[in-house]
Amino acid sequence: MDLKPTKPLSGFIELLPTQQRCFDYCAARMLDVLKKSGFNLLDLPAIERAEVLTDKDNWDEIETQMFLFQKGDTKMGLRYDGTVGLSRYVAGHLNDLVFPFRASQFSKRYRGERAQRGRYREFYQMDMDIMGINSLSTNYDAEIISVIQRTLNSVSEFIGDNAVYVGSRPFWDALFDYLEMTDAQKKDVFVLIDKKDKMGDDDFAEGLRDTLNDADKENQIKSVFVDGYAGFVNKSEKLDAAIAELNEFIKTLELFGVKNAYIDLSIARGLAYYTGLVFEFKLLSHPELGTAAGGGRYADLAGKFSKTKIIGVGAAIGFSRIFVALMENGAIDLTRFDSPVSVSVLCMGADNLAYAVSVLNAIRDAGVTAVAYLEADKKFKNQIDYADKIKAQFSVIIGEDEAKSQMVAIKDMQSGNQQVVSLVDAIEIVKAK
Amino acid sequence: MDLKPTKPLSGFIELLPTQQRCFDYCAARMLDVLKKSGFNLLDLPAIERAEVLTDKDNWDEIETQMFLFQKGDTKMGLRYDGTVGLSRYVAGHLNDLVFPFRASQFSKRYRGERAQRGRYREFYQMDMDIMGINSLSTNYDAEIISVIQRTLNSVSEFIGDNAVYVGSRPFWDALFDYLEMTDAQKKDVFVLIDKKDKMGDDDFAEGLRDTLNDADKENQIKSVFVDGYAGFVNKSEKLDAAIAELNEFIKTLELFGVKNAYIDLSIARGLAYYTGLVFEFKLLSHPELGTAAGGGRYADLAGKFSKTKIIGVGAAIGFSRIFVALMENGAIDLTRFDSPVSVSVLCMGADNLAYAVSVLNAIRDAGVTAVAYLEADKKFKNQIDYADKIKAQFSVIIGEDEAKSQMVAIKDMQSGNQQVVSLVDAIEIVKAK
Repeated sequence: MDLKPTKPLSGFIELLPTQQRCFDYCAARMLDVLKKSGFNLLDLPAIERAEVLTDKDNWDEIETQMFLFQKGDTKMGLRYDGTVGLSRYVAGHLNDLVFPFRASQFSKRYRGERAQRGRYREFYQMDMDIMGINSLSTNYDAEIISVIQRTLNSVSEFIGDNAVYVGSRPFWDALFDYLEMTDAQKKDVFVLIDKKDKMGDDDFAEGLRDTLNDADKENQIKSVFVDGYAGFVNKSEKLDAAIAELNEFIKTLELFGVKNAYIDLSIARGLAYYTGLVFEFKLLSHPELGTAAGGGRYADLAGKFSKTKIIGVGAAIGFSRIFVALMENGAIDLTRFDSPVSVSVLCMGADNLAYAVSVLNAIRDAGVTAVAYLEADKKFKNQIDYADKIKAQFSVIIGEDEAKSQMVAIKDMQSGNQQVVSLVDAIEIVKAK
Repeated sequence: MDLKPTKPLSGFIELLPTQQRCFDYCAARMLDVLKKSGFNLLDLPAIERAEVLTDKDNWDEIETQMFLFQKGDTKMGLRYDGTVGLSRYVAGHLNDLVFPFRASQFSKRYRGERAQRGRYREFYQMDMDIMGINSLSTNYDAEIISVIQRTLNSVSEFIGDNAVYVGSRPFWDALFDYLEMTDAQKKDVFVLIDKKDKMGDDDFAEGLRDTLNDADKENQIKSVFVDGYAGFVNKSEKLDAAIAELNEFIKTLELFGVKNAYIDLSIARGLAYYTGLVFEFKLLSHPELGTAAGGGRYADLAGKFSKTKIIGVGAAIGFSRIFVALMENGAIDLTRFDSPVSVSVLCMGADNLAYAVSVLNAIRDAGVTAVAYLEADKKFKNQIDYADKIKAQFSVIIGEDEAKSQMVAIKDMQSGNQQVVSLVDAIEIVKAK
């Protein structure tokens, strides 16, 4: 029989134990910030009804983007983000939740597209959302940004510092109105703005020309990417309101202690449900990673599930995107995650197993990570080799003498020093290191 | 437009925040035991190639059991257990891992069957495996059972005490040989034994008669469920060896400090890859839950991926099965998970926002869970209602006086006592509670 492949499917991440410990450590630290900030951690199903995942009917097209399947008459698929499930959940539990409701999700998401370099088909994102019914102060937008920065800062030893760039959907809406663009033009130009980074300046300019065919309007739009809102002060009430909101918001961010916050009107955040301010985080030492986190305000989260208007601000940190990339390119030093084991208990001879196991249990009970090598008939060399390979800090060696005297031989695996001490003293030695 | 359904698909679990906190708390405690026991936590892809998930070719039949889909020419699906991915991973990383390799997985698994009461289509299991190359002492089987018991005991305040029942595949093999059964009979009778609990004594007896048509053999097999191995001592070498292994193993379990361990030859553990001792845990206060955890020894984990023989012992705790059921039937008191919030910061008036936010950040920096109500223009009653609803222990109230004096008003939400103190003292008061 042919052997089956041992590699995971392309686009799927599989970490070695040392990498996984780093990944888990960073996740735990970041989630702790979110918990301390009062976010309710939710764990929603990874599978949703197709009608919940998408409003489109074109099954064939959707299938190229998602993992879809059918059970009986029900079409369903794997979630591609956290928002789709959250909106369903919140709409279904309006009376069970306290608003403003703070939710966080750290979960796997799925993209059914063909795998490309740097694009995963299964990946973790860490979401946070604050949702109100009918209204929600923009102070919460500032708080979300503050919490994201605190979350990223909690692992700054690995990922360095970050900056946040704030854009505005209302600014573009106001500008499009001021330029008297048609609805079709507005839509097409917004797509161009969203894709500008990927398409490059020349294609962007050509796209504007194809859509607007008006050199003045084209130049005014292009000027935003060079001079920001400078050319649009005192042009229309709507523009002034959008600009004032942005300037006010940057002040609120300062008040929240947010560092490195900038207005950047080129931030568009795709064609998603955002309706207000939008923002993106970048890692200052790792520009190559692009957007590390992003989000914004939405005016109607759950319109397709409920007549109650849920207004919110939400964001997602590209957790796998950041940490898998930084581990793979060697930017994170994994040495300290090499081993989680403090003590390796070695048992020399089956007759001493009872004592060795009692020592093992006592060490574990003391809250120390301990692993026993339970092939008691193996030679000392094999046993100490194992302790060495798993990079245990200490070996506790149980032979006939130790079993008789109810003592233990403890060996510092780095210095090689070995001494015979009581079990209590051995645990002290390990804890003191 | 019709509103879309807000309920999750049937068979999918969705917890409210209070339940989720209990679920996460129990998972964290149990995973801590596994980490302290030196298990490497792995997080493998939820999607595997179909050829990895199954050796069967009957696509239509498999589709009724799993969630399957096709991308390009590749058939793939969602994992139904943790072992299938683990075996692929270990076979693919023989040179990266140290053996005996200890792995643990806490992850979602999927069953594509039609949803039934008490059967989930998405659920968590917590696995642990110890794997050796070519050989592995049965001391590790004892250790796995010891670690499962320690893991379950770490949450005994919620689930009570447990007991473990140990069966033996070799015993049945030896008995079938002793009874001179044909290979076809062996297979059919083992299926009957595995399903005995579900089918009941009468159907079991009828099944034996249909298969064996030999009253003496039928009675000998039935005697095992009444008298255990008592009638089979000194009948054959193989039987004696299997019985001796079981008795020896119960002694080793004692030595590991395992409580409530019994031999129970009716434990069969399905038709899976097990080849040696098998075991199941039950919760003594919750027999209605059936098997809380189960596992056993396998002689060749990764035969379809590698020519290297990986021998191991593994088990899975039915995490969702236990905790979702106990929360739903009210067996777990969720009061202590009602709120994670220690302090609610209330801001009376937008002018005081700067000071309120600095207080919020200082409280969070002190490691205290704090939530701010940032609708600064809302009346005091609305604000204190919010603090009450989220069940905050304290409210820290920031008005004009506090902003001026740089003090805070702190209100104990249970007693109603309120005092004006410095921020440092307020944090002390919260931490002292």
